[in-house]
Amino acid sequence: MANSPSQNRSRSKGRVTLSDVASMAGVSSMTVSRALNDPERVSEQVRDRVREAVEALGYIPNRAARSLAGQRSYSIAVVIPSVSNAVFSNVIKGIYDVCSARGYEMLMGNTYYSVQQESSLIAKFLTHHPDGIIVTGLNMADSARTLLQGAGIPVVQLMEVGESEPIDLNVGISHRDAGAAMARYMLDKGYRHIGVLGAQMDHRAQRRIQGFIDVLAAAGRYDERRIVATPEPSTVRLGGLLLGDLLAAAPDTDAVFCINDDLAYGVIYECQRRHIRIPQQLAVAGFNDLEASSCINPSLTSVSTPLYEMGKTAADMLMRRLNGEHIEQPVVDLGFKLQARDSA
Amino acid sequence: MANSPSQNRSRSKGRVTLSDVASMAGVSSMTVSRALNDPERVSEQVRDRVREAVEALGYIPNRAARSLAGQRSYSIAVVIPSVSNAVFSNVIKGIYDVCSARGYEMLMGNTYYSVQQESSLIAKFLTHHPDGIIVTGLNMADSARTLLQGAGIPVVQLMEVGESEPIDLNVGISHRDAGAAMARYMLDKGYRHIGVLGAQMDHRAQRRIQGFIDVLAAAGRYDERRIVATPEPSTVRLGGLLLGDLLAAAPDTDAVFCINDDLAYGVIYECQRRHIRIPQQLAVAGFNDLEASSCINPSLTSVSTPLYEMGKTAADMLMRRLNGEHIEQPVVDLGFKLQARDSA
Repeated sequence: MANSPSQNRSRSKGRVTLSDVASMAGVSSMTVSRALNDPERVSEQVRDRVREAVEALGYIPNRAARSLAGQRSYSIAVVIPSVSNAVFSNVIKGIYDVCSARGYEMLMGNTYYSVQQESSLIAKFLTHHPDGIIVTGLNMADSARTLLQGAGIPVVQLMEVGESEPIDLNVGISHRDAGAAMARYMLDKGYRHIGVLGAQMDHRAQRRIQGFIDVLAAAGRYDERRIVATPEPSTVRLGGLLLGDLLAAAPDTDAVFCINDDLAYGVIYECQRRHIRIPQQLAVAGFNDLEASSCINPSLTSVSTPLYEMGKTAADMLMRRLNGEHIEQPVVDLGFKLQARDSA
Repeated sequence: MANSPSQNRSRSKGRVTLSDVASMAGVSSMTVSRALNDPERVSEQVRDRVREAVEALGYIPNRAARSLAGQRSYSIAVVIPSVSNAVFSNVIKGIYDVCSARGYEMLMGNTYYSVQQESSLIAKFLTHHPDGIIVTGLNMADSARTLLQGAGIPVVQLMEVGESEPIDLNVGISHRDAGAAMARYMLDKGYRHIGVLGAQMDHRAQRRIQGFIDVLAAAGRYDERRIVATPEPSTVRLGGLLLGDLLAAAPDTDAVFCINDDLAYGVIYECQRRHIRIPQQLAVAGFNDLEASSCINPSLTSVSTPLYEMGKTAADMLMRRLNGEHIEQPVVDLGFKLQARDSA
C-alpha cells in the first residue's frame, strides 16, 4: 500500500484480534471465545469484562470462520432489475425490514433489466453462500434456473405470479389480470379511443399491456396506432414525450393507460402545458399507485400494487423456510386494487 | 426440515461439490481446483472440460473458504439512512455501478435515520469482513467511529463535507453552504417574507436550514413563525400539509424553501388546489433537483446535488485504495448548483 501514514489511521492500528480482547479482559482467548459463542458457560463477571473489552477495542468476531463451520451466513441475496426505480425501492424496503429484524444482511444486485446480467449476478452471489435468494420475476435464462435449482437454498421469485411454474417459492400479482382490469374499467367509463404508453418494456410491462389489449380487442376497440411503447427507461419527462407521439398519431384519443405512474405524471404535466383538460378531453391512468398519485392534480387513477408487502412476504417465506417450517402455499398471489380517482 | 419433497426440488439435489465437478469432467478434485483458481497451470482442454462440468452442474466455488485464506471478500458494505428515499436510490446506483463493474457485491444497510441503529449495523456488517465500507455523513456515535477506526479497511463518509474531521475518506457537499445559497437567491429575487418547510430533520436537513436561516438573519429577515419543521418522514402529501401550517401561522409569506423536492411537489399541488399562483403569490423552491422537477408546472427551482456522482466517487475512492493507490485528496467536495426555474 502506497498510502501516507496520515491517510491510514484506520489501517495503522491493524485488525483487533481475539487475543487483544483476551489481554485487555485479563482472561484466556478460549474464555473470550466461550463468552462470545456460549455465554452460559462463563460467569456474569467474565461476560461483563469481555463485553467491555470488545466494546472498547471495537473487536469484530470472524463471521467467515463461522460460515465455514457450517453455520448460516446470515445474508440474503436480492436480485432486482433497478436499484433506482421507486417501485423496487418499496419492494426492497419490505425485504429489508424483515431481514434486518432477524439479523440478516442483504446483498443487493441490479440486473439492469437484462437476463444475461441476471444470470451472471446469480452465479456471483451464490459464491457468497447466502442463506436464501430473492430474484425478480418468473422469466429467466435456463442457466440461472439451473444454478438456483442446484444451490440448495430457498429461492423466492418476486413481483409476478401465474405466468409459469416457479423454481421454489413465488409471490407477486398477475400483471396480465391487472392490465385487463384497467381496460375493463376504462371501457365501463365510456372511453372508446383508448391509448397505451409504455417504456422499459420489461416482462411485466409487456404482460400489463397484453392484458389491456386483449380486453380492448375483445370489445372491438383495439387500434394499434394508439399503442406507443419504447425500450427507453421510464421517466416523468418521457411520459410527456410519448403523449406527444400518441396525439400526433391518433389525435382523437380520449383516454390513455400509462404502464407506470411516472409516465402518467409526465402525461398530466404535458396536458397542463397543452391546456388539455383531464379527464374531460383525455382520461389518464397509471400503474403502481406511488405516494404522489393521490396528491397530484387531478388525482391519478392507478392500479395499487402491494410493493412493500411483496418484499415483506418474500422475506417472511424465506425466514420461515430457514426456521424449518413447512410452507403450505409456495405460490402467493397478493392481488391488486384498481384505485379510481379524478383523472379517469 | 419439515418441508414436503415437492417443495424441496432445489434442496433435494444437495449442494454440488468440487468432486461432483471432478467426476463429470473425468479429472481429480485437485485438477478442478487448479483449473478454477490457477487456470494457467492446466491445459486448455482440461479448462474447457472443467468449465463445461461447472456450467452443467451449476457448481458454486466456496467464497467463504477463499475469504478465510486471506483473500478479499469482494463485498462493500453500504450504510444509508433510507433505502426507499429517491435521494439515496440515486446515490446507491452510483456506488452499485462502480462496485459491480469491478466484481464487488454490495451489502446494504438502512439506519432509519438513527445513530444507534447505525452503530449496530456497522458492528454487524464488519463481522462479514467487507473490503470497504461506505457510511452516510459525518455525524455518528463514538462507538461507530471506534469500530470503523479499528476495522482495518477503507471507510468513506458520504453526502456531506466540512462539518467535522472524517474518519478516513469523505465525499459530499456542504449542506450549510447550499442552504445559504438558496437564501441569497431568494433575497436577491426580492422576496421578503420567506418561510422554510422541513421534514425528517436529519443532520443534513438541519444544516440546510441553518445555512438558510443564517443568511436571512444577517439580512434582518428571519422570522421564526415561518420555520415549520417536523421529524415525520418526508412525503409529497406532507408538503401540502406543512404549507397549510405555514400559511395559517404567517399568511403574508411570499416565498417558501422546502428542504427537499418531495415536499416542494406537495406544496405546488396544494397551491394548485388553493388557487395560489406560483411564483406571483408564493415562490417555491426545493432541494436535490429530482428528475420530475424540470417537468412539473411550474418547473421547480431547486439545488441540484450530485447524488449519483457522490455514490460513484465514494466507490471509486474505495476501489483505488484497494488497488494500493495513494489518494491525494481524501476529502472531495463535489459542490452543488442552484437550478433557477419558473417556481421562484
